[in-house]
Amino acid sequence: MLGSTGSIGVQTLEIIQNDPDNFRIITLACNQNIEVLTTQIKQFHPLLVSVGSVEDASILAKEFPEIKFVSGNEGLVKAATYDELDHNGLLVNALVGIAGLKPTIEAIKCKRNIALANKETLVVGGVLVKRLLEEFKVKLYPIDSEHSGLWQCLDHEDPAKIKKLYITASGGAFRDYSRESLESVTAKDALKHPNWQMGPKITIDSATMMNKGFEMIEACHLFDIAIDKIEPVMHKESLVHAMVEFVDNSIIMQMSSHDMRLPISYALYYPERTKNVAQVLDIAKLNNLHFSRVDNERYPLLITTVAAFKSGGSLPCVLNAANEAAVDLFLRGKIAFLEIETIIIESLKNYEPVINPTLEDLLLIDKIVKKKLYQKYDY
Amino acid sequence: MLGSTGSIGVQTLEIIQNDPDNFRIITLACNQNIEVLTTQIKQFHPLLVSVGSVEDASILAKEFPEIKFVSGNEGLVKAATYDELDHNGLLVNALVGIAGLKPTIEAIKCKRNIALANKETLVVGGVLVKRLLEEFKVKLYPIDSEHSGLWQCLDHEDPAKIKKLYITASGGAFRDYSRESLESVTAKDALKHPNWQMGPKITIDSATMMNKGFEMIEACHLFDIAIDKIEPVMHKESLVHAMVEFVDNSIIMQMSSHDMRLPISYALYYPERTKNVAQVLDIAKLNNLHFSRVDNERYPLLITTVAAFKSGGSLPCVLNAANEAAVDLFLRGKIAFLEIETIIIESLKNYEPVINPTLEDLLLIDKIVKKKLYQKYDY
Repeated sequence: MLGSTGSIGVQTLEIIQNDPDNFRIITLACNQNIEVLTTQIKQFHPLLVSVGSVEDASILAKEFPEIKFVSGNEGLVKAATYDELDHNGLLVNALVGIAGLKPTIEAIKCKRNIALANKETLVVGGVLVKRLLEEFKVKLYPIDSEHSGLWQCLDHEDPAKIKKLYITASGGAFRDYSRESLESVTAKDALKHPNWQMGPKITIDSATMMNKGFEMIEACHLFDIAIDKIEPVMHKESLVHAMVEFVDNSIIMQMSSHDMRLPISYALYYPERTKNVAQVLDIAKLNNLHFSRVDNERYPLLITTVAAFKSGGSLPCVLNAANEAAVDLFLRGKIAFLEIETIIIESLKNYEPVINPTLEDLLLIDKIVKKKLYQKYDY
Repeated sequence: MLGSTGSIGVQTLEIIQNDPDNFRIITLACNQNIEVLTTQIKQFHPLLVSVGSVEDASILAKEFPEIKFVSGNEGLVKAATYDELDHNGLLVNALVGIAGLKPTIEAIKCKRNIALANKETLVVGGVLVKRLLEEFKVKLYPIDSEHSGLWQCLDHEDPAKIKKLYITASGGAFRDYSRESLESVTAKDALKHPNWQMGPKITIDSATMMNKGFEMIEACHLFDIAIDKIEPVMHKESLVHAMVEFVDNSIIMQMSSHDMRLPISYALYYPERTKNVAQVLDIAKLNNLHFSRVDNERYPLLITTVAAFKSGGSLPCVLNAANEAAVDLFLRGKIAFLEIETIIIESLKNYEPVINPTLEDLLLIDKIVKKKLYQKYDY
């Protein structure tokens, strides 16, 4: 379990805790939330734990002498590939950011199936990862309400039958704001998401719709679909998560209450389903749901995403790196909300695409893009 | 193609006409619409044609000497089982009424797959038919918007994962009437269905909700589900046709514009889908759909259906026979609308269930029930 102290990590462990007959936690990994991690260690007795810093690792090693502690990016890879006991293990990767890419790749090489909440794995490394999945015959299960919805609608379907995939978008914290009024919004305003309780990074990505852009890229890789066949749809209730329009114009949609435990549980138990994961939706009360097209002028990052994805190569990596840095700068009050967009759009103009980048290329490009942005704005 | 001149038959032939490379009509069967049949014969050049009366058969035989003509119930069986050329044929059974049961059974015995629009096959003979489908390893594909919707949502799913199946109900021509105001409605009023253009029998069944009751029984047989797990839901827009609630409370639903060509085409082409069968539904305009629970006091035949199905044996046959006679009597002005219900409910009380009825038992019971009702009301 990578990212065990984040929102997805905590909910995943909750599910696992309730089903000790089916699951056993072998490794845990987080960055710096040592307090929550300590509780998790006591509860799940992992064999290996990875944390962000060497210091935390050695402090914890004294407290839990029976457990192996590792740290940093190398520690994440160790946690992702550790297989002392469990050759049929599943990696749950709920890391935030590009740090999630290498552990996924190394786990695939160990023939370990992946339940993936880390967006960067596919956004930045989609082409690489897809190639490896095929080579090592490994399964990748999405943990995300939209992709889980598509997966539930599409299971076993031939991509040739698909006309369009729709992923719904709540519109985030500022969905009722005009572009003008976005100029003065603060990080505090942005963190009030109307429907979901999520981490800060993803909540900002939701307000800029960068999130939906990333999900479009992920859906391309997950379902072997051209990006032009994927459309985000505004749906403020966040009950319908995904829709598939087939070539005959029949539509299959998936809905459920807003509860990440559903996609987590679907990935953990697939092809089974467990009982009463999400709250029951009363069919008879599903009146007045709202759907509308996304206004691409209001949310310019969607068009930016499609262009970056079509150019391909290293450009999705630049897109992601610029966004990671920009969101961080915004959360720390260094830039205004709308500057997130301009930073991303400018960054994409500043880099020539590298064709067929290796993992090392991608990690290097990520560093360069971020470094330049921090140099410019983080004074 | 049984029932070629009815609403489903005509639309099926329309699809087939547009795809001569994939389909060839071997037999046609109808009752008495000889004018439409003659046009169809000229268009599709069948090898064998069945009509209701011997007289019509011999008149047509003179006009089309190269074609074999048969008639009556025996003719329907011949048309359903004829295999001079085509051992991998599909029977499309769109007959209305119990006349559709025997042809289905005989076609199954010829190992012919069935695309089924005839409700009585499963409502009356479901237990028999299911046993034969298994014995002869024959597939049965529903042609009906609700069951096609369930089928599209459920393909390859283990019934153990299903918590509930919902089929939507428009509520028929009188959905906004109180029970009191139903007392004086006429056949002419009843034939104005708000969403679908269908034959008169099914339009009346829609107004009484007998139709939904039959669909519940059919769904039990088609998807191996207990009747208590099937619930009709009022949905006046008739865009969502079916919903599946899984044990984890995730819901998958199917929607499409009201167009029977979609379920017909889905059954004809399965597992493929063909392009642009139904009109595109604009996702961005799917606002304000309405769903509500069915009022069982307003539509008492639903509870009657569940009770008859649970008692089993010959009772679903009595239910259907009483309904066929009552609808016919109503359409001919012999009884009032609400008498359809009382006739059905009374009939069920008058007959002891026969356990494990044979086809012959069922056909005999059907005759007796109808005969008694016609003796009583058709003076």
